[in-house]
Amino acid sequence: MIRVGIVGASGFTGGELIRLVHQHPELELTFLGGSSSAGKRPAQLHPGLRLDLGGLSVEPVTADAVAGRCDVVFLATPAPVSAALAAQLADRVACVIDLSGAFRIRTPELHERWYPKAARSTELADRFVYGVPELVGDQLVGAPLISVPGCYATAITLGLAPLTLGLGLNLKTVVVDGKSGSSGGGVQLRVPDLHPLRNGAIAPYAPTGHRHAAEVGEFLERGKPGSVGSLTMSAYGVSHVRGLLASAYVFTDDAVDGRELQRAYLRFYKGSRFVRVRRNTETLIPVPDPQAVLGSNYCDVSVLHDEEGGRIVVLAALDNLVKGAAGQAVQAANKRFSLPEETGLTMEPVMPA
Amino acid sequence: MIRVGIVGASGFTGGELIRLVHQHPELELTFLGGSSSAGKRPAQLHPGLRLDLGGLSVEPVTADAVAGRCDVVFLATPAPVSAALAAQLADRVACVIDLSGAFRIRTPELHERWYPKAARSTELADRFVYGVPELVGDQLVGAPLISVPGCYATAITLGLAPLTLGLGLNLKTVVVDGKSGSSGGGVQLRVPDLHPLRNGAIAPYAPTGHRHAAEVGEFLERGKPGSVGSLTMSAYGVSHVRGLLASAYVFTDDAVDGRELQRAYLRFYKGSRFVRVRRNTETLIPVPDPQAVLGSNYCDVSVLHDEEGGRIVVLAALDNLVKGAAGQAVQAANKRFSLPEETGLTMEPVMPA
Amino acid sequence: MIRVGIVGASGFTGGELIRLVHQHPELELTFLGGSSSAGKRPAQLHPGLRLDLGGLSVEPVTADAVAGRCDVVFLATPAPVSAALAAQLADRVACVIDLSGAFRIRTPELHERWYPKAARSTELADRFVYGVPELVGDQLVGAPLISVPGCYATAITLGLAPLTLGLGLNLKTVVVDGKSGSSGGGVQLRVPDLHPLRNGAIAPYAPTGHRHAAEVGEFLERGKPGSVGSLTMSAYGVSHVRGLLASAYVFTDDAVDGRELQRAYLRFYKGSRFVRVRRNTETLIPVPDPQAVLGSNYCDVSVLHDEEGGRIVVLAALDNLVKGAAGQAVQAANKRFSLPEETGLTMEPVMPA
Amino acid sequence: MIRVGIVGASGFTGGELIRLVHQHPELELTFLGGSSSAGKRPAQLHPGLRLDLGGLSVEPVTADAVAGRCDVVFLATPAPVSAALAAQLADRVACVIDLSGAFRIRTPELHERWYPKAARSTELADRFVYGVPELVGDQLVGAPLISVPGCYATAITLGLAPLTLGLGLNLKTVVVDGKSGSSGGGVQLRVPDLHPLRNGAIAPYAPTGHRHAAEVGEFLERGKPGSVGSLTMSAYGVSHVRGLLASAYVFTDDAVDGRELQRAYLRFYKGSRFVRVRRNTETLIPVPDPQAVLGSNYCDVSVLHDEEGGRIVVLAALDNLVKGAAGQAVQAANKRFSLPEETGLTMEPVMPA
Repeated sequence: MIRVGIVGASGFTGGELIRLVHQHPELELTFLGGSSSAGKRPAQLHPGLRLDLGGLSVEPVTADAVAGRCDVVFLATPAPVSAALAAQLADRVACVIDLSGAFRIRTPELHERWYPKAARSTELADRFVYGVPELVGDQLVGAPLISVPGCYATAITLGLAPLTLGLGLNLKTVVVDGKSGSSGGGVQLRVPDLHPLRNGAIAPYAPTGHRHAAEVGEFLERGKPGSVGSLTMSAYGVSHVRGLLASAYVFTDDAVDGRELQRAYLRFYKGSRFVRVRRNTETLIPVPDPQAVLGSNYCDVSVLHDEEGGRIVVLAALDNLVKGAAGQAVQAANKRFSLPEETGLTMEPVMPA
Repeated sequence: MIRVGIVGASGFTGGELIRLVHQHPELELTFLGGSSSAGKRPAQLHPGLRLDLGGLSVEPVTADAVAGRCDVVFLATPAPVSAALAAQLADRVACVIDLSGAFRIRTPELHERWYPKAARSTELADRFVYGVPELVGDQLVGAPLISVPGCYATAITLGLAPLTLGLGLNLKTVVVDGKSGSSGGGVQLRVPDLHPLRNGAIAPYAPTGHRHAAEVGEFLERGKPGSVGSLTMSAYGVSHVRGLLASAYVFTDDAVDGRELQRAYLRFYKGSRFVRVRRNTETLIPVPDPQAVLGSNYCDVSVLHDEEGGRIVVLAALDNLVKGAAGQAVQAANKRFSLPEETGLTMEPVMPA
Repeated sequence: MIRVGIVGASGFTGGELIRLVHQHPELELTFLGGSSSAGKRPAQLHPGLRLDLGGLSVEPVTADAVAGRCDVVFLATPAPVSAALAAQLADRVACVIDLSGAFRIRTPELHERWYPKAARSTELADRFVYGVPELVGDQLVGAPLISVPGCYATAITLGLAPLTLGLGLNLKTVVVDGKSGSSGGGVQLRVPDLHPLRNGAIAPYAPTGHRHAAEVGEFLERGKPGSVGSLTMSAYGVSHVRGLLASAYVFTDDAVDGRELQRAYLRFYKGSRFVRVRRNTETLIPVPDPQAVLGSNYCDVSVLHDEEGGRIVVLAALDNLVKGAAGQAVQAANKRFSLPEETGLTMEPVMPA
Repeated sequence: MIRVGIVGASGFTGGELIRLVHQHPELELTFLGGSSSAGKRPAQLHPGLRLDLGGLSVEPVTADAVAGRCDVVFLATPAPVSAALAAQLADRVACVIDLSGAFRIRTPELHERWYPKAARSTELADRFVYGVPELVGDQLVGAPLISVPGCYATAITLGLAPLTLGLGLNLKTVVVDGKSGSSGGGVQLRVPDLHPLRNGAIAPYAPTGHRHAAEVGEFLERGKPGSVGSLTMSAYGVSHVRGLLASAYVFTDDAVDGRELQRAYLRFYKGSRFVRVRRNTETLIPVPDPQAVLGSNYCDVSVLHDEEGGRIVVLAALDNLVKGAAGQAVQAANKRFSLPEETGLTMEPVMPA
């Protein structure tokens, strides 16, 4: 059994990691770390999870404790905390998997702009593998340091990669519109996240830009320099809890064969266990829709040719706490330890919910 | 008192018209028309409206009945029905106000494409005034035929008009993303509109185009030829009931002074009772958000300069059943009969709800 | 115009009072009081209410300010604050209307048990009129001190009064089950009220008792001593925002004529503008349902005879912020100042929403 | 592998059965039956389930097909269909598990009253085992015919059994109040189930009685004759999708030791894998709450002593599609085939959702 630590056990992502690790046949939970929640048992923090974890409760984090008891540690902590912890734990634990934004963006200037409070050394940052398992080949095998992409970044990257990396298109202008549920905001007490103010809302919380867009641009450009011209993003909170949909409206000067797009996506994701390429009308509701992936590790992707409008419309839906966070982290861990990618992640979506 | 008929009394828009007409000091409900609901009293169709309407119940529609008993008739009917009824009622009733899409688009080819089942004569269509009261000056005064814009079209048009008609910009590329609640679908029985399948959804129901976009383009072009280059739209159903948000991502080659934008919008809507130009962060939730206009006739508009992204972001929120339908129709009727524009429409938003 | 002050302007009830006072033809808002929100304009606190209030903003409360500028003051404050303010303002303002629980329960022991932090003098408490306008006859006319019942208490009292005060039944056992939306919890930051944890919930937050039950028992007993035997209550938070339904399951040893019940309720509330006696199946959804009164001052009541079960089922629905708080307060003020009861309260329900 | 057929594949319960059977290590899906959905693949009917099922699609049901290809068949069909199918399939398939109400109530008169359209022979009905695995000991092992209890019935029975069967109390009066989400209504097209009319609702759809109450009374009386005096029930639809909470307000003349209740429940369910006895305040939201069991096979139960009110309050929450239907059916099948009870059912709750 691979011994697992989770730091940031009280958050929604922390809870989801507990759920997934508990269900995983090769992982064993041996450490739960936290500060404000120290001393608490998981069931006190996560109402659904009244699990027998051998008496495990949340402990203050020390590098010695983590290093001594874990083969892999998941950091479900704010970026500044992750930056500090990763520096302490690198080389002391076989694998550190960070779910924050501390190591997602490689370019120092870009990182500082979007994560000004998460100072880190460039050397350390350069050692992290950007953990979209579908797009980084074998880089995750044996990787000591893995940075899990943001929830929106995962959806957008998986949505656009077949265009740039698959079809080799140059995307002149990409306009991304993101819609997400309230679980993305975590358990923090903020007035706009109170139920009376969030229920029924369409909240334009990041109308002119979102830091996940920077990640996407940087990553896609690394894969194919020059492939992404302008990429802008606006993000909205809507009236449900779990799941997001990212829409990318793509304008390109390259020739596009509408009938070929769908085939290109199917080809690109052939063999990817967790990306489902879907037609918008293939089932009784329009898809992709995050409710159709709820609780699962799927990312549903559709590509449509708006011929009259001269654009490509790419839609990608995922569960922000699973494929957008904890599930992707476990998927990356599976790759890291050379387990089958889907180990412990075979749960199908819970729908309707 | 002005005598009012409502045809299509059983739908959500019909119910909202009954609510508003009932609260209006100068309008008197004298006719309720419908086919499948004939014989029913309003309270049977609209659970909230147990009103004393002098025994009025829904009757089958005949031109004679409407002409004999109404000064103004609101058609809250599907476009094909409206097309037929308007032809019969024009010139027999002082004012016909159509809330369907039958007379919104003037260009015959465009109309046929988006409303193939709503055949109408071009002569009749040309007589209709497009009823955005804020943008058509005095055209509504005394108008015998008024076509109320679509809910999305109202939001987008009010959002973009200050750019083209106010600042005189030419909009090279406009990408519209629309998010709306389930009440827009009406009382029709469709599987995707069942609560278990719509709650928690982000449904990409019109990912590559929406007919309201055609309306907007045509109208803005009439106001300033050449001002709208490419205008594309995608529409999504989200997990609440009432209200929509339209986002327009605007790219222009003209010079834009970011600091000037807000002032230009305030100037443009100075004196407009129902358009509130708001800053995104002016209150405790991000706005515009449709929950902040619920039940009212307001359209909340914000304009932001995404300087780095080289675009203007315009957001417009309204209650699709009020400013997007029944409220705007009553506002148009007020103008038509030379009443103060806000008569009967002074209800403030119901929030939280 | 009657000059109105509102203390506790930042809460949901405070916002609703602003909305209703603003729409009221005889009331004029002259004072807004608060502590943490002092200096704020209403639009900053209430996203929907961007009103022209002559520059009014929230001020710290002093007895002199209120006494000098108000004919009536609404206290939308926590019970301890209300207890202190009422003592200062009584006899200095023509009418003090308290919306908290500070003066609802008359019996000192009972009051201390349920409101231990809201100490008050018995003399002062005895001077307050319990403000259910439908049930206290002319006591509100000219009353200097009015205590507005709790939201649940209003529903239960209006639901049961026709049985005890109308039919003269003795109710041996009453089991009340209350279901309410999240707006009842106010704008306070509490983890269970965060959207992700409240959406989809059925939260048994008061499973063995609720202080509103004490109010009801005391009031009904005052009206007909011995009429209420055991009255127990359990309360649940469900997954919407505004509105509540109270169900009372009533067992009595007195003879009950099932066919007579409905008529007795209609008779009892004949002439009551805001109580609608409804049959469960009279419209297209089962009623009473709080969505059918949203934003209005109605309380919908149904009575059913469960003959086989040997019980009477009474259902009462209202909007907790209107008939359960601000609307009822304005209705009481109307009575106090001898205005028609419905002045400023004629808005019909906003549905669907 | 045990070969499994599912009849009624297009409903929500059918979809949930597909999900659970697909995840089950010992069950293999070999037949999908339906009428209106014949010819469809599961992914067309269930947007989340794009599974590789070896090309399986829905087929018309014939006894020969089912008997030839299945060791166990789940009937997720309306009661009249189940009654007819069970008669054909009994003795031809090793095990028939019916999820409808056709065989839940044993007493013929009671059955006819609540299921008048589901005629069945008494002989056949008497052969069915009532499948609450926690309460029927070894009766399920090898059982050829199993009737899965209703969703509410499961919750109420599990909630009350420790009182009657465990503590031996006689329950004089039990008042049950049930609150459930919209998924209980299935995929049928009914106006009150449209999203705009169900969202925000508290719908008193069965205010004076519910057929699940009859089941509970009969079953508990079989276990301990005379233990249930009056048992009445009222049921409400609230504003979420999945999960229900049943509250039982219990009055007894027997002596009750409040401190003993909790221990008695813990003792009664010791060793029951899927019943979690919880204290109301043990975690960060009040429990039981159906959101804390979503997607899992748990039933969460709490017992509270309302000493002042002289009653016991029992709360039971479950996912109506899992422990209230498909999950319980699979659990019963596990017992039937002598597999560990939890096989294929170890998924933990998905929360927040």
